[in-house]
Amino acid sequence: MDLTNLHALSATDAARVIREGVISSEQYVAACLARVRETDARIEAWAFLDPDFALAQARAADQHRLSGQAIGPLHGVPIGIKDIIDTADMPTENGSPLHAGRTPSRDAAVVTLLRAAGAVIMGKTITTEFACGASGKTRNPHDPAYSPGGSSSGSAAAVAAGMVPLALGSQTGGSTVRPASYCGVYGLKPTRGLIPRRGMSRVAQTLDTVGLFARALDDIALLLETCVAYDEGEFESSPRAHAPYRAVAAEEPPIPPTFGFVRTPHWDRVDADAKEAFAEIVERLGARVEEVELAGGIEQAWEWHAVIMESEVAVNLAREWDKGRARLSERLRTRIERGRAHPAARYLEALAQIPRLNNGFSELFEQKYDALLTPAATGVAPAGVASTGDPVFCSLWTMCGLPALSVPLMSGANGLPLGVQLVGPRHGEGRLLRTARWLVDTLRPRA
Amino acid sequence: MDLTNLHALSATDAARVIREGVISSEQYVAACLARVRETDARIEAWAFLDPDFALAQARAADQHRLSGQAIGPLHGVPIGIKDIIDTADMPTENGSPLHAGRTPSRDAAVVTLLRAAGAVIMGKTITTEFACGASGKTRNPHDPAYSPGGSSSGSAAAVAAGMVPLALGSQTGGSTVRPASYCGVYGLKPTRGLIPRRGMSRVAQTLDTVGLFARALDDIALLLETCVAYDEGEFESSPRAHAPYRAVAAEEPPIPPTFGFVRTPHWDRVDADAKEAFAEIVERLGARVEEVELAGGIEQAWEWHAVIMESEVAVNLAREWDKGRARLSERLRTRIERGRAHPAARYLEALAQIPRLNNGFSELFEQKYDALLTPAATGVAPAGVASTGDPVFCSLWTMCGLPALSVPLMSGANGLPLGVQLVGPRHGEGRLLRTARWLVDTLRPRA
Repeated sequence: MDLTNLHALSATDAARVIREGVISSEQYVAACLARVRETDARIEAWAFLDPDFALAQARAADQHRLSGQAIGPLHGVPIGIKDIIDTADMPTENGSPLHAGRTPSRDAAVVTLLRAAGAVIMGKTITTEFACGASGKTRNPHDPAYSPGGSSSGSAAAVAAGMVPLALGSQTGGSTVRPASYCGVYGLKPTRGLIPRRGMSRVAQTLDTVGLFARALDDIALLLETCVAYDEGEFESSPRAHAPYRAVAAEEPPIPPTFGFVRTPHWDRVDADAKEAFAEIVERLGARVEEVELAGGIEQAWEWHAVIMESEVAVNLAREWDKGRARLSERLRTRIERGRAHPAARYLEALAQIPRLNNGFSELFEQKYDALLTPAATGVAPAGVASTGDPVFCSLWTMCGLPALSVPLMSGANGLPLGVQLVGPRHGEGRLLRTARWLVDTLRPRA
Repeated sequence: MDLTNLHALSATDAARVIREGVISSEQYVAACLARVRETDARIEAWAFLDPDFALAQARAADQHRLSGQAIGPLHGVPIGIKDIIDTADMPTENGSPLHAGRTPSRDAAVVTLLRAAGAVIMGKTITTEFACGASGKTRNPHDPAYSPGGSSSGSAAAVAAGMVPLALGSQTGGSTVRPASYCGVYGLKPTRGLIPRRGMSRVAQTLDTVGLFARALDDIALLLETCVAYDEGEFESSPRAHAPYRAVAAEEPPIPPTFGFVRTPHWDRVDADAKEAFAEIVERLGARVEEVELAGGIEQAWEWHAVIMESEVAVNLAREWDKGRARLSERLRTRIERGRAHPAARYLEALAQIPRLNNGFSELFEQKYDALLTPAATGVAPAGVASTGDPVFCSLWTMCGLPALSVPLMSGANGLPLGVQLVGPRHGEGRLLRTARWLVDTLRPRA
């Protein structure tokens, strides 16, 4: 086994060779930490990273395996955790000076699931302020003059740079799919309610979803299988049979999938490069894709999303607003001010659109398309780190709670990556991943 | 069998003698209709009642039984349905001239369950305007100079007068427990989410609950067993094993139950008669009851309930407000205006109190009390029909989604009935009914 690029192993491969004893978790984690030392000075993906503690976890995993006990599907594999997701043994500062030094007493539910699967919690990754305010310090690994996207900035960048094979993020607007697109990795925002959110900082409870990052589709499926659980405290969670995402994702589609190409009412915001890249994809897919005009009234969906998000943010950050307004960014203060001004009736009207919109999408998926195909972002990453880019191509799907996956298939004229976004029906993650694989296999050989 | 008072049979007894062929459904329904003719001119409980159609349903039930087919637990038993609950074969006018002549195309989910159980849908009972506005015409069967309470006015009155053994109502504030108290019948507001609401006019989705009326505890248990179902479209509904409410309610408590007597911060609104009646009950229960001081901050709960209810009413009646404001009552217009003025942040803050309050109540039930004991209303029914009375002793339990039962155990100096309200833990209906039976058996012999 060639150990020179050990950090570049996928989580799936790493888990297998660790299980088989070909390498130790300590070797793999050490390789990832070496990669951090090598690259992170210019990327700054981490809010907290203690190499010794990561290695200690890896050694414990190795001893556990050698003792002959059963091991989980992520045994010895390191993962980065967005710094809005609580960890009992590391700080969780939510990207705000107001929460500096905050150390939760309990793991978030999803962290508990990861530990039970044997994962090594590598560290906490940079988030924008409360996942909805000012940018963090992280830069794009492909070119540090550009933004990695946000709010899951550090998670996307750390995975893209090879510092970890996996990371958790979150999405309330476009916080997973967009940074995945900018950083050239896979980013999955699953069906809302599928992964428990308990212990994740609440941005907007109607919208918040745990997001997953990886450099390989297999790894997304593996991570998803680990993170799915029922939480009876969650309004959109329900007990479900265990879904074999990895097996389904690995299957050949019984017939080649059909795609609905969605421009959305915001196509004019897409830059020329991205429009060209999409034209090429649509041309190459030929009869497998047709353009979908979303139903009338959809133009308002972005406004509804904003009303829901701002109203809930204003309440969820009320304590910070009351006690530390001066230490909130201007951007976040504006958002909270807008939220405080929305009438309850307007909020409730916006909320009532979600099932209405979903009825329309259910029909599309049942009758016509395996997935909707749409940009993950308006183009490649924006220059500088002041802005994490425009989430306009994500918020509709987030509002509807539909699974959305950024697939790193394209690039702009400057060589920066650009994702294709695939959107599937609620709880259709297995088929969505299978469809994504088909798309990659079909387009990549000639891309 | 003495047929002179056939209408006075309980639903449980009627269902049994119909099943055994002692009487026919037609005889029983005819007796109930005779009672309607005799009493309803002064009570006016019905928004729609077609005696021929009720008899036709009864004859069909009799033929069905005679054909040897399986029959349901309510086979041939008539029930009144509050006129905000849709019926495919009768109008549903929601107590408003704006909906005059409205004929739904489908039965509400709970009506479907009743028909499947063999019930005869007797007719539609008077509701206040949209179950939250102006009073209807119904008067108290004990004395037509008094209100029957509301909003489920006709359901409570029809059951109390012996026109039907059972009726469905609803509760968003105090619309089942209060009229049950004023009319001297049992009224159960079950755990929110237990009975499907699909096809019931939406007043305030966070609060709306289907309510049950009967003159006997057995009948409440029988009706509850019929009406419980999972509805995956409902946020508080979950699939549950069938609960044998009748069997549990009929059991002797393993040890005598303990009650927590709750005055609430609104005890000063209780009239002198009711205070005296409660003092007597507390004295007679002796060591079986202790007074409970609700936790600090509870004073605000009534305001939170109002914010939630008004905000949601404003949205749910937005079409009526936009198109027919002049035909809404002044009372309802004021309510909607208040609702339109609430900020989303205030609404969301109120919503966030529900789980917080429930945590407190869960502890009380787990550690100390079989049921909380509290007034069902501030006193006996108010004079006149302009007001349906004060729901102040109901809204807290409605907001928390806890099961609440009015037990007809007391009366005022003028002889009008007055209920004791028992409140139990979520999904504790079986034990709550068993506790109620113990209370009735214990107090009635000397009352």
